[in-house]
Formats: sequence, structure tokens, C-alpha cells
Amino acid sequence: MIRFSGRIEKLKPSAIREILKYTADPNVISFAAGNPAPECFPVEKVGEITAEIFRDEPVAALQYAVSEGYTPLRDYIKSTLAGFDPELDDVVITSGGQQAAELTAKLFADEGDVIVCEEPSFIGVLNAFRSYGTALVGAATDERGFVLDTLEKTLAENSGNATRGNATRGNATGGNATGGNATGGNATGGKVAFIYTIPNFNNPTGRCSDVTRRRGLLALAQKYDVPVLEDNPYGELRFRGGDIPSLKQLAREEFPSVTVVYAGSFSKILAPGLRVGFMCADKAVTAKATAALQVSTVHTSILPQMIARRFLTRTDMSSSLSFLRGVYKRKCTLMTAELARVLPARVTFTRPDGGMFLWATVDGEVDMAGFCGELLKRNVAVVPGSAFMMDEAARSNCFRLNYSTPTDENIVIGIGRIGEVAREMFG
Amino acid sequence: MIRFSGRIEKLKPSAIREILKYTADPNVISFAAGNPAPECFPVEKVGEITAEIFRDEPVAALQYAVSEGYTPLRDYIKSTLAGFDPELDDVVITSGGQQAAELTAKLFADEGDVIVCEEPSFIGVLNAFRSYGTALVGAATDERGFVLDTLEKTLAENSGNATRGNATRGNATGGNATGGNATGGNATGGKVAFIYTIPNFNNPTGRCSDVTRRRGLLALAQKYDVPVLEDNPYGELRFRGGDIPSLKQLAREEFPSVTVVYAGSFSKILAPGLRVGFMCADKAVTAKATAALQVSTVHTSILPQMIARRFLTRTDMSSSLSFLRGVYKRKCTLMTAELARVLPARVTFTRPDGGMFLWATVDGEVDMAGFCGELLKRNVAVVPGSAFMMDEAARSNCFRLNYSTPTDENIVIGIGRIGEVAREMFG
Repeated sequence: MIRFSGRIEKLKPSAIREILKYTADPNVISFAAGNPAPECFPVEKVGEITAEIFRDEPVAALQYAVSEGYTPLRDYIKSTLAGFDPELDDVVITSGGQQAAELTAKLFADEGDVIVCEEPSFIGVLNAFRSYGTALVGAATDERGFVLDTLEKTLAENSGNATRGNATRGNATGGNATGGNATGGNATGGKVAFIYTIPNFNNPTGRCSDVTRRRGLLALAQKYDVPVLEDNPYGELRFRGGDIPSLKQLAREEFPSVTVVYAGSFSKILAPGLRVGFMCADKAVTAKATAALQVSTVHTSILPQMIARRFLTRTDMSSSLSFLRGVYKRKCTLMTAELARVLPARVTFTRPDGGMFLWATVDGEVDMAGFCGELLKRNVAVVPGSAFMMDEAARSNCFRLNYSTPTDENIVIGIGRIGEVAREMFG
Repeated sequence: MIRFSGRIEKLKPSAIREILKYTADPNVISFAAGNPAPECFPVEKVGEITAEIFRDEPVAALQYAVSEGYTPLRDYIKSTLAGFDPELDDVVITSGGQQAAELTAKLFADEGDVIVCEEPSFIGVLNAFRSYGTALVGAATDERGFVLDTLEKTLAENSGNATRGNATRGNATGGNATGGNATGGNATGGKVAFIYTIPNFNNPTGRCSDVTRRRGLLALAQKYDVPVLEDNPYGELRFRGGDIPSLKQLAREEFPSVTVVYAGSFSKILAPGLRVGFMCADKAVTAKATAALQVSTVHTSILPQMIARRFLTRTDMSSSLSFLRGVYKRKCTLMTAELARVLPARVTFTRPDGGMFLWATVDGEVDMAGFCGELLKRNVAVVPGSAFMMDEAARSNCFRLNYSTPTDENIVIGIGRIGEVAREMFG
């Protein structure tokens, strides 16, 4: 009998992963994944760049490198990131934005601490938090971002236990409007470690927080003296509307006492398999992150970092992004048009201005597991909403759809089948 | 004021890292690093292989992949690893052997748990353990491996507190012969989480544990019901003597109840910058490791995994390893011959049969920091022994020398300078 640590004993593989097993079958139309559109990968360009690297600096591409990341890539990020303050901030390269989020939990959260998250939120990062024995508390969101009075109530209820290492938390069930269940937690710690948000094109909802709500979030972070993890993998995939200032930028300009840890990624604008992302934060934070990287991956694989740097600095990124945004806009528009055509009135859905996901909600209490199971029988995979809840055992009347991975043809066929089952079950 | 988690608050960057800053100066001859010899990198071959990958399967090289790693690479490892049992074991790919060691701490050690380590041992992995709030307890080693009665005493003294999550540990100072200081620890937990060992060409000592001691270690692991982390980055760099069975293999054959987590690496036999290593263990362990990988790096960068697999399966590895071993043997022999020529009698050193490091010991109590500082003034960098102790503040009369990175010419010049300073200070 193998005895694992408390933090890992309860960690389950992602629920999405289980669904993705079905999608290995080529007959299954998958709206369950979160993969960028493969036709958007700059395959030829990356091939050329890699050949150049092996011609020009092969030893550098193979030898150990520094833990904070490849300096020219860090310099590129510093020069392009809105709100970057060279006096106060630094950038470290991570193996994708996911590692930046995981490191934030390792850096800031003691076991039993509370992490306040958007309800619903991205399961991969929620599981990263769970893997450090933290308690997740959800605060409700709507189409404009965090519902601020709910967020404040959640912070107020959970900031009483701020003594480190001796307050025992059984569970942190909050009184917030639409959820707020705490799970996990090895029952030491107890403070709110930080607030986690995906302000741009949230995964799973596809919603974008507006600037008023962003300021409101920062004001609460200031009032309750809580750091913020801003996870922004999708911000550059905006295909409608204008950019909204990042929390990082707003904090530097208007809330200078708030610590914002910004997690960025090149997975969506270059290629996810390279596993190159970054963390930008106060130098004191990136120094600790560097020490933490040194003992985990040592450094992100250096060849992918060199590829990313050459690609980003030598490509016309505005035309490259225009191309990506065009593809995502076309797919999103097609999917929402098909959904509007086939869904019964009880089922509504978000209409994202960017990103890769949309979120459908069935009015009333429904058998969502039954719905998703019936879809799988008809060779269509979606992710039930419970996967994105703080309490995965909670019922959900929602499901997530991804439009970046499937072909246009499969979007039409697959949404058609979703319409059939929805009309049968919710009509 | 930024408030970090207890586990990270105390984490310092590696002491070696501070020394390596000096070695950026090209006038400094560095025996401080742990880099493979760059002339051993198969630069042309890797360049060719990478071009092939971008020609044959570019999308696979750029898209998300599974967390457990690239199946053909995992299959190669399974087919070549001695003691691998396909019924019981599995392999997951990690970003270097370091990540496999870090994951082992995350999987097995609660905060405040004890990890029993060789004294001295590799600082990078010791810091990984420290980053989970564990208490490190050293057990003495000699030229044959762990001193078994000391190891048993350490296990016996620390296995009384096996109640999870409520025993408070102030410090775990053991009564073992040559060290055994406990540091760190957030004072919950308290059981022995596992034993950590580098049986082949230990970093820093260069020593290799003999088979009797390996069996003795496994017998104690069985008696005290404690898992073992076998870290083997250097095993394939043996240039003298015959291979000794791994703990993994001996456990499968003779101590089937003992859980051995085996950490392997391609950093030394291919290239460290790729960050490709692996963990081999019971399927229950690799399943948890996969869930932990999923929330951290998601997966090891896929292009380096594909490069490693093509390189390993299509190269004549026995001739490739012969070449490497020849280089390391030549450099080690040169260094030990020069040391024998220039050192005063008070300074002795190990004569490794493989690996990249040797370990020098000055008889009696000495000012090792002063010695290393004086060497730096003469443009030679070595690592003082204290870096490898459980208690980094402890005095050490030892220093580590790396022979894989410097050129032959610099070995002669640098060891000459070490001899000068050693004769002045210890003559």
C-alpha cells in the first residue's frame, strides 16, 4: 500500500482528460479540447528558424541555461507587455502559463489557505491549486466579470483566519450568491492566499471582464491586502471590440500597493507543444519564482525558448495575429449561428469576443451528465459544467464548447447533433 | 510587504548559482559547474533529426501532447531499463531528472516530514525537498555508500512520529555519526517520507555504492516501510569497472515490497538543455505523477521528446556512450594526476569510476570559505562542501571539483592554482 502526501492523495486527473479519451476515436467530433487550431501553427517558419538555430548556435541550444529563462526572450516580453515597470517588475520564463499559475500557488499558498476563484473557472489551474492542499472558494461571475459584492463578501468571510499555520478550517462554505463551496485543504493555514482570475475570454465562459469590474477587483484586493493572479492566455485572441487594460497595468497605474502576478503564454499565438509561457511580477516574486523553477524543471527547455524568441521578434506579429483572429472569429461565428438555429429556447449561450470557448446554460435543473453521455453516444464530446466548479460534485446546468479545434464542417454536423439531443431532453 | 508561503519563504537560490556568477567571466577557470562537456553534444545529428521532424510531423511537434509523455520515447525507456516490470511499472517523461525528484517530494512528503539523504548530497534536489517544507536528515556515507548502521539509527529515530499531520517537529537532530542535522520544516507531518540516494557516482562525491550496501539499504527500507528515491543521472557515464544493479532492479528481484522511484535523465548522455528525463515507478505512483505533471508543466515540451526518441533509437548508443566515457575518463584521469602532483598531504580526494565530479577533503578543521574565496581571486571556482550538507550553515572541510566542463589545458592550469593555495593554507 503506497502512502501519498495529503495534498496529492485527493488529487484526481482532470475530468476533461477522461472525456478526451473518447475523442481519440476519429469518428468523435470533439468540442471538449482546448487546442489551438492546428492550421494556425506557423509550421514552415518554425522549421526554418530551428534549422538556423542549429546552424548558428547549436551548443547554446543544447547546454544548461539559466532558470529565469532565455534573456533575449525575456527582453522581448518586457518590451511588449503593457504596464511593465522595469524598476519594479521582472519576467521569468515558465513551461507554459500553467506552470506560472502552479508556481503562484507554491509561492503564496500555505496548506489550508483559501484561493478565491471565479465560479466557474479553468480546471487545470484549479487542480494546480488543489495539488498544494488549498481550499478553493468560488465567487460568482456574470457577463462583466466578478460580481463585486459577492467577491467582497467572500473576501470578508475568509480574511478572519489570517494567522498562519494554526487556524483550522473545516470547510469554507461562503454565503455568496451562486456557489462558493470550499473543497480540499489539509486544515492548516487559513488566510486568503490570492484571488485567481482569467479576465480575458475566461475558460470556460468566454466572457471578458470590463474595466469597471477590473478596477473594482483591484480595489478589493487593496482593501483586503490580497495578491491577484491574472491568467491571460487568450487576451491576444480578441476578434471583436477593443483591448481592455490588464489588471497588471491598472494596478501599476492606480493601485500600486496591490501585488499582481501576471501569467502569459505563447501557446495560443505560437504553439502549445513548445511549452513556453512566462510570469511577470514584482522582482521579489520573480526572484522566488526563479528559486522555485531551479528546483523543479531547472529551466524551460532552451530550444523552444530560442524558437519563440526568433519567431516573435522576426515575424510581423500584427499580421500573424490578424490571421489567427480571423480563423477564430469565423469558427466562433459559425458555431453561435448554428447553436442559435438548432437549440431550444431553454438553452442559452455566451457570444465571446475572443478566445476559444463558449458556455451554454440550460434553464432549470437538468441531468447534465445524462445529456453529455447521450452526446457521446452520438459521437460528440462536450465538457459538463461541473468540471469547472470549485466543488466538482456539484450539479451544473452548463456545458463548455470549444470552437478552435474542430473543422467548420464538423462544427455544423456536431452542433446539429447537440441540437437534436437538446430538443429531445430540454425541448 | 509581500507575504510568501512558509515553504518558500525560507527557500534560497542554490549556493552554486552564486558562485556561477563569477564564472561568467571568461578568465575564470570553473570547476564549479555541473555541465556535460559541450564537445560531447551530438550537434549535427540533433540538427538533422530536428529537420526531419519538421518535415515529417510538424503539427505533432507543436500541438499539445499527453502529460505522461511521448509514447515512443516511453516505450524506448521501458525496453532498455533494467528491472522494468511491465506488469507493475510505468514510465512518465519529466523535464529532466530534477523534475522527477521534485515530483517525488510533492507525491510522498507532507510538510514537516523527514527525508533521509546521503550526507553530502546534491544541492539541487535537497532544495527541491526544502521547497515542500520538509526536514532533511543526513546519514553518513563512505566510499561504499550509506553507512548502514547510521542509516538504520536515522530511520529508527525518525520513524516514531508517523502520525500524519499532527506531530510537531521542532528539529530532528539525529545522533548519527557524521552529521545528521535537520533543517526547514513547517512543523506538521513528521514521518520519514522516503530515502534519497544517488547510488552511481554521487554528486558531489563521485562515489558509487556497492551491491552489498544497495541490498542493505533496501532491507532497511523494507524493515521501516519507507520508499526510496533512486536518482541516476550519471550511471551511464561509467568509464571503469562493471555496472552494479540498480536499486530498482534489486527491489523487483529481492525486495518486492519496497517502493523504488527511479529518476533517469538524458541530460548527460544527450543534452541537458533539452530538459528530458523520466520517472519509472509502480503504476500507482506514475498515475499520481501524471496528475501532478498535468497541473504543472502540462507535459514536457514535445519537440525535445521527439528529438530524444529519434536520437536514442537511431544512434549506435554503445559507440556514442564509448565516446563520452572516453572523454570523461581522460579528463578525470588528468585531474586526479594533477591533484596528486600538486596537493599537500593533508588534502585527499576521491578517484571516481564515472560521472562528472570528485570530492576533496582537507584533514582537520579549516577555513573552507577562505580557501574558496582565495581561489576565486586567482580566477578558479570550486564549490565548498557546505553547499551539499543538510545544514548549509555547517562547517565543511571539503570541496567539489567538476572535470567534465573545463578543457584539458584549463584543468592543468586550474589545478595548479588550487595546489598553490592549498600549499599556502594547508601545507
